Amino acid sequence: MSDGRLTERDGGAFRLETFLHRSQRVTITRGLLDPGNHLLRDSLGARRALVVTSPSVWSLYGRSLHDYLSSGPVRAEVEYLVLDRAEASKSLDAAVEVCERASAAGLRRTSPIVAVGGGVCSDICGLAAALHHRGVPHLKVPTTLVGMIDAGIGSKNAVNHGGRKSALGTFHPPEHSLLDPGFLASLPRHHLANGLAEIVKLAIVSDAALFELVAGEVGSLLDSNFSAPAAVISRIIRLSVTGMLRELAANPFETADYRRQVDFGHTFSPHVEVQSGHSVLHGEAVAIDMALSSQLARELGLLAGADLERILSLLEAAGLPTTWPPLSADALWASLAGVVEHRNGDLHLVVPTRIGRCEYLGLERVSPTLLRLCHERLSQRSRATRAAGSRAGVVA
Amino acid sequence: MSDGRLTERDGGAFRLETFLHRSQRVTITRGLLDPGNHLLRDSLGARRALVVTSPSVWSLYGRSLHDYLSSGPVRAEVEYLVLDRAEASKSLDAAVEVCERASAAGLRRTSPIVAVGGGVCSDICGLAAALHHRGVPHLKVPTTLVGMIDAGIGSKNAVNHGGRKSALGTFHPPEHSLLDPGFLASLPRHHLANGLAEIVKLAIVSDAALFELVAGEVGSLLDSNFSAPAAVISRIIRLSVTGMLRELAANPFETADYRRQVDFGHTFSPHVEVQSGHSVLHGEAVAIDMALSSQLARELGLLAGADLERILSLLEAAGLPTTWPPLSADALWASLAGVVEHRNGDLHLVVPTRIGRCEYLGLERVSPTLLRLCHERLSQRSRATRAAGSRAGVVA
Repeated sequence: MSDGRLTERDGGAFRLETFLHRSQRVTITRGLLDPGNHLLRDSLGARRALVVTSPSVWSLYGRSLHDYLSSGPVRAEVEYLVLDRAEASKSLDAAVEVCERASAAGLRRTSPIVAVGGGVCSDICGLAAALHHRGVPHLKVPTTLVGMIDAGIGSKNAVNHGGRKSALGTFHPPEHSLLDPGFLASLPRHHLANGLAEIVKLAIVSDAALFELVAGEVGSLLDSNFSAPAAVISRIIRLSVTGMLRELAANPFETADYRRQVDFGHTFSPHVEVQSGHSVLHGEAVAIDMALSSQLARELGLLAGADLERILSLLEAAGLPTTWPPLSADALWASLAGVVEHRNGDLHLVVPTRIGRCEYLGLERVSPTLLRLCHERLSQRSRATRAAGSRAGVVA
Repeated sequence: MSDGRLTERDGGAFRLETFLHRSQRVTITRGLLDPGNHLLRDSLGARRALVVTSPSVWSLYGRSLHDYLSSGPVRAEVEYLVLDRAEASKSLDAAVEVCERASAAGLRRTSPIVAVGGGVCSDICGLAAALHHRGVPHLKVPTTLVGMIDAGIGSKNAVNHGGRKSALGTFHPPEHSLLDPGFLASLPRHHLANGLAEIVKLAIVSDAALFELVAGEVGSLLDSNFSAPAAVISRIIRLSVTGMLRELAANPFETADYRRQVDFGHTFSPHVEVQSGHSVLHGEAVAIDMALSSQLARELGLLAGADLERILSLLEAAGLPTTWPPLSADALWASLAGVVEHRNGDLHLVVPTRIGRCEYLGLERVSPTLLRLCHERLSQRSRATRAAGSRAGVVA
């Protein structure tokens, strides 16, 4: 729904105030593609729709998806597009390809684009939905852990451009995000740890209870491919989704300010992702950033040594890296100019002050020397940890 | 400003309602680039800004613009980009070029992109502003008549893609539109008639007083290049802006329905523009569409013959075409499928029922036969008018 209010003052001066109201649903379910589960079919209704997915998701779930959408009393007219894109090619071209297919499929202004896949698919489809006919609805069915607790429930989308991550994008809230933890069983362990990084992020900055829950169960979660213990998984996803949606509700279009808890782990990570040519995955880069930001808080006397230890230990137990050997503190420092620009003039670096709490640091609190020191401390620890034969802790 | 409200129901079902509030100013002024006029400088403040313009506008006003922006107590840090694009290349590439330049210039999330030019420049910059950092402010300084009463005050932007007009775009309200009728003095008469089409459009569907005003003064307006009589010009622009903003206020993001008075003249016109390879300008195509829609209303018994005559006579007096000889009724009919798709399933054809009033017709009221008949009637009239030696009335 939208509304406007026009006022006219003397001498040909007008003010038009506009109000846009959107409503977005997020539902956690099980067996999303079981014929008896009406959720996705009900969301589509009788609308024509374009379902977009990736080759790997299509090979695993294409048949079930097609069978599911072909059944039921009201049949939506569904077209499918299998997009073959990696993170490095999360490009404007990909979003335009989706728009072209949406046009060819005759999608109207109320016809949704449905993203079934991970964060890349979600971002590409979100931007395509924002641009086609100046905005059509989109539905999200995340198949990855990151998707379920982050990319698949937010309203932000973006593609990379000219060597800049997320350079072009919009805010375009999805109509409905349907989360089925059952999809996680087919994910490589690598990708699970990836999503776990975002959960750990929320836990560190805003939810001590979530931190305890994850710390206590991380071994069995990884060993069971996030399928057991089922009650714990549901609780973790629910807490994470709640945390993320609360943050979104406070400032949905980021007009209020540029200090966001969920930016924890997202200040240094874009540089690591781009510098590594995307061989370091998003969640891994976020983990490296969280370790660095936490170490930084420790060096500045803002975080207790014991809390730093618990944070780094949890990252390691989750199979996440805490450092990236090729990292250059000077290059990292230089990359902060872009972050400052994006956050409208200051760094707003999120650092934990204890488990479940955080604060924001300005650029003046950071320096190349401090970054170098933190990087060195983390590298030493990671070498010692590896020598002691424990879990990963480093991206080679 | 934005706000959100999160509700959680049993079983992991969430609803996030988001509210986005924007405030947009439109100011009619004179002598915008006079050193003593603070309006534009005050709007920029001390923000870094990217000013985008076209080669023709730059050659006419580049120096004044630069001098104006370099003066005053608070100096904005301004970068300039002269975009060389014609209507046919109102492309995504052009918008991306603006984003790249905005990045290179270090534009932050509160730094505006300022479009100084016609509708093409305005659309390209509006889309670029929507995509850069997921939305930065933009200011509009329209230099054409169409820009002042339409493209330069609305929140819609779009570029052409894959042979479809306005295929990709967004709604992104400008922060401030600054309208100075003084820019019109440098416009070719051709372009003035072009903008006049949009004024006549508003007059026909919603403002009989504006119709009278324009009909009474059209000769002197054209002869003086829209510079005299000054009081009449100010009144015409103010009435047109008021009409357009009222329409926008009723449904600013077009979420309410797809029946819009301002779509009068915009149903058949995209086909004419694309088919002619953009040799028929937008306003000319709108005039051809208005004539066709009015003739159609006449044939259906919805519009009196005398009112049709007044409409066609005004278009002719304004130097606008009322028909396009190469038009094929069958191709035109086929093009309506795309319009129906864009308007979410029906044609919502706007036709006048008398001067200042209109209604909407569904697709079932139109047919290739009816279109052919109307086209033939208008072609006959236009041949007769030309034979009688009066003004244009036809695009060769």
